[in-house]
Amino acid sequence: MKPKISDVAKVAGVSPTTVSRVLNNRGYISQETRDNVERAMKKLNYFPNDVARSLFNKRTNLIGIIVPQTSNPFFGELTFHIESICASLHYKVLLCNSLNRVDKEKSYWEMLMRNQVDGVIAVTYNRGLVNAHEKPLPIVTIDHYLSPTIPVVSSDNYAGGVQATELLIAKGCQHILHINGPLKLETPANLRRKGYETVMQEHGRTAITYEIANALNRGEQQKVIAQLFREHPQVDGIFASDDLIAATLIAEAQKYGKHIPKDLKVIGYDGTETCQTLLPSLTTIRQPIELIAQKAVEVLLKEIEGDYEQEEMDICLPVQLIEGTTT
Amino acid sequence: MKPKISDVAKVAGVSPTTVSRVLNNRGYISQETRDNVERAMKKLNYFPNDVARSLFNKRTNLIGIIVPQTSNPFFGELTFHIESICASLHYKVLLCNSLNRVDKEKSYWEMLMRNQVDGVIAVTYNRGLVNAHEKPLPIVTIDHYLSPTIPVVSSDNYAGGVQATELLIAKGCQHILHINGPLKLETPANLRRKGYETVMQEHGRTAITYEIANALNRGEQQKVIAQLFREHPQVDGIFASDDLIAATLIAEAQKYGKHIPKDLKVIGYDGTETCQTLLPSLTTIRQPIELIAQKAVEVLLKEIEGDYEQEEMDICLPVQLIEGTTT
Repeated sequence: MKPKISDVAKVAGVSPTTVSRVLNNRGYISQETRDNVERAMKKLNYFPNDVARSLFNKRTNLIGIIVPQTSNPFFGELTFHIESICASLHYKVLLCNSLNRVDKEKSYWEMLMRNQVDGVIAVTYNRGLVNAHEKPLPIVTIDHYLSPTIPVVSSDNYAGGVQATELLIAKGCQHILHINGPLKLETPANLRRKGYETVMQEHGRTAITYEIANALNRGEQQKVIAQLFREHPQVDGIFASDDLIAATLIAEAQKYGKHIPKDLKVIGYDGTETCQTLLPSLTTIRQPIELIAQKAVEVLLKEIEGDYEQEEMDICLPVQLIEGTTT
Repeated sequence: MKPKISDVAKVAGVSPTTVSRVLNNRGYISQETRDNVERAMKKLNYFPNDVARSLFNKRTNLIGIIVPQTSNPFFGELTFHIESICASLHYKVLLCNSLNRVDKEKSYWEMLMRNQVDGVIAVTYNRGLVNAHEKPLPIVTIDHYLSPTIPVVSSDNYAGGVQATELLIAKGCQHILHINGPLKLETPANLRRKGYETVMQEHGRTAITYEIANALNRGEQQKVIAQLFREHPQVDGIFASDDLIAATLIAEAQKYGKHIPKDLKVIGYDGTETCQTLLPSLTTIRQPIELIAQKAVEVLLKEIEGDYEQEEMDICLPVQLIEGTTT
């Protein structure tokens, strides 16, 4: 049996009301009484009930995070930082892995509402999810525009696309292609493609983007890459929209007898710690993942506290080119 | 303002008691009334309050997960599977990243208690955490013995250590070393080391293990590896207790001019999807991560339901040798 407030009161030799006052820091309590109550709580292994408390306070201190999947190193790292920052501010995190599926995003969203979360940080790919609900609670998205009233935190995807493409050109590549996820113009991630296209155009070249419908699926990545090599045997530079795609690309290129970087130069995007450990040779555009997490939590808490300003609708953070030996 | 039950009742043209009956599936309700209430809820964008409900039911359907950090690919993948399985069973997951720190484990543990979670799945490295509290709620650990009364789910670490060492011997290695995290005999992960030591002994060789105090820290990994190469320049085979250490080892070996696998053969442990994508050349012992997650959730739910059997105290799941080109 879990101990109750009345048990604590008995052991401490005070009334239940006094225990409740200590717990809620209300009314005058002498230090001696406070110590007595705390000793009794410890002795009985009593923990105050945050669920009851949150009903009373109309605040749960719960934040929902929706990400595609924490097994992806970018989302695993992002989730780690968001949760750690939340914990340091006494917020708890309900984790949701949506796999980018509309049905899962929808049911997680409803679950978070039912559980009275104070706010949501979402990395979702499907529009319409929140619009339909007319933003019923504070929300921040990362890298994806959900609706004009929802703030977005992202890395400077356009600059990243420009830097990646300019590097490949500077290295002498003649046939540069781009591989990306589904082409949805409204996501900041597609600004990576815009950056690529702009630089290609400036140099009088034709921009060609290969699209992977489900970018998280390695089998699908391989299929698109095989098609790319078939249709463009002369390709000598590829900008991949994330490091996992770049890694799959490198493995596939070797099957085709292409030497990297001599025959083919490859640059990725994300620059997670995991990728820097497992594939340190990869040239990539590093996102400031911890800073993205910090900003997202900061904006969300401002929304929750009600002192949120409109100019913070689109927060764009700097990226960094990390040169390895694949370019 | 959030809509209330009384608002739903007004729109549906029924009493608040009827709305409450529909929500809780109690008493007779005609299909027409049910449809009316559900339409009204949808129209008002009303979500039932799971917090209030859980106080009433004495069940929160909340599971706490404590892992060192989801940015590590093994824990990111494990967390993904645990959360997905929980979600499919209508359990919600509170995520805690402990960084293996005793103080964080302790404060997360107390937070989970205060939030009335139905149970906890923990990957913690510090003993005593739960003992002190005399197992106040259902708990399962992964890969770590916390107390004799707490069930453990792990991969067959001993068999993994045996297979890894036997492979290096079969490949002709003469000086085989092992790198592992902190040596705490009570953790199943140290059975990897036991497996290594047993095989070495069987072949009349001396087992030498290098210990990394904080295995998650890459700088510390590099320091220990440098020491290893200094003290054992003749080393030609290394079994690393996880894939990230193996990857750091490969990068360091190259700095010392050691060719892999000619001069030095390396085998890791874990075999996450991320590692298979970013470093497919690595020979490794693959843990059945999804199965570990499944078993952990299964045992925890049995504990929660009270039909848990003692013989399930130590669940050991098979590993698989994946041969790459580093051995």
